[in-house]
Amino acid sequence: MQLSARNQLNGKIKNVELGAVMANIKIEISEPNTITAVITKESAEKLGLSEGDDVTAIIKSTEVIIGK
Amino acid sequence: MQLSARNQLNGKIKNVELGAVMANIKIEISEPNTITAVITKESAEKLGLSEGDDVTAIIKSTEVIIGK
Amino acid sequence: MQLSARNQLNGKIKNVELGAVMANIKIEISEPNTITAVITKESAEKLGLSEGDDVTAIIKSTEVIIGK
Amino acid sequence: MQLSARNQLNGKIKNVELGAVMANIKIEISEPNTITAVITKESAEKLGLSEGDDVTAIIKSTEVIIGK
Amino acid sequence: MQLSARNQLNGKIKNVELGAVMANIKIEISEPNTITAVITKESAEKLGLSEGDDVTAIIKSTEVIIGK
Amino acid sequence: MQLSARNQLNGKIKNVELGAVMANIKIEISEPNTITAVITKESAEKLGLSEGDDVTAIIKSTEVIIGK
Repeated sequence: MQLSARNQLNGKIKNVELGAVMANIKIEISEPNTITAVITKESAEKLGLSEGDDVTAIIKSTEVIIGK
Repeated sequence: MQLSARNQLNGKIKNVELGAVMANIKIEISEPNTITAVITKESAEKLGLSEGDDVTAIIKSTEVIIGK
Repeated sequence: MQLSARNQLNGKIKNVELGAVMANIKIEISEPNTITAVITKESAEKLGLSEGDDVTAIIKSTEVIIGK
Repeated sequence: MQLSARNQLNGKIKNVELGAVMANIKIEISEPNTITAVITKESAEKLGLSEGDDVTAIIKSTEVIIGK
Repeated sequence: MQLSARNQLNGKIKNVELGAVMANIKIEISEPNTITAVITKESAEKLGLSEGDDVTAIIKSTEVIIGK
Repeated sequence: MQLSARNQLNGKIKNVELGAVMANIKIEISEPNTITAVITKESAEKLGLSEGDDVTAIIKSTEVIIGK
């Protein structure tokens, strides 16, 4: 399946922190950039996310703010 | 001003495409990654965005989807 | 690739309307529900979206508001 | 009050899971589709959300990603 | 209908600018604050938005970034 | 740094509530308006957010829904 989301950054999970409902996932995409993703704990468990996993951070272009 | 948004990726604008209301901005953050940002034309003009500008792509962590 | 996004609704494209930068896509997911998606024109063209295509509307759970 | 949000799917709450700050709400909209909404615990309590409630899942069209 | 969205700011439309697919709406909520909302042209037309209308700007709390 | 986000509302923090992963922050922007922001606990701690702080609530215009 191809996605309309323009931003798809490949990386590796560095940390998974689970709360009651949400989870905070750190993904190293390339030195020196790390992506933080907050998803449901439910999703983190269904995808079996853990340190070292190769994943893709997917971001719709309307969600990006530019700073200059 | 510091931002609560966890994801702040530095890059350089590669292309600016203006529509009537929106604008599509391409930002090269690091080989091989390019970020597409869709912002208002109004913002693109107020910030004077043009090719070659050093900018930051800012993304709140709740906006990131993970694919595995 | 599995996605962390909890909401994935299968449907068929009923209409594609292209602007200069954005595109408005209508997806029939099940009677009587239609999903409207606004994506970049760039994405609509790269995915070759047209009437009759079988597609999936993907929505992260943090983007849903509840009315009661 | 009418809303600009194009996507308003009627359904019934199947499950409410409360965390410290957030809540995960499952809404059955039509077989076989279920919507997951993550809202604040504060909102879940102010609206008194509980299993069996008739609710509407509201999603702005810019938040929808298309997969094909 | 009550909404889970915590932020509901009452104001008056100051300007409506229509593009091919999107519309940029300016809402004065209180001096000196103005809210800019980008919605579909389709929604702007269905709600018949025009200058002077009393409207509410609705923002889910997960969409707010804090600067300090 | 200037931001493309059109909505930047100045206010003062009235309450900070921390969960395991997320935090709920109340910001008084002007009588009678209060903004609720849900950000990561990580961000709340890195910015050292506490009651009485002068902050800015930043909201991209594509995230605003209009009710009429």
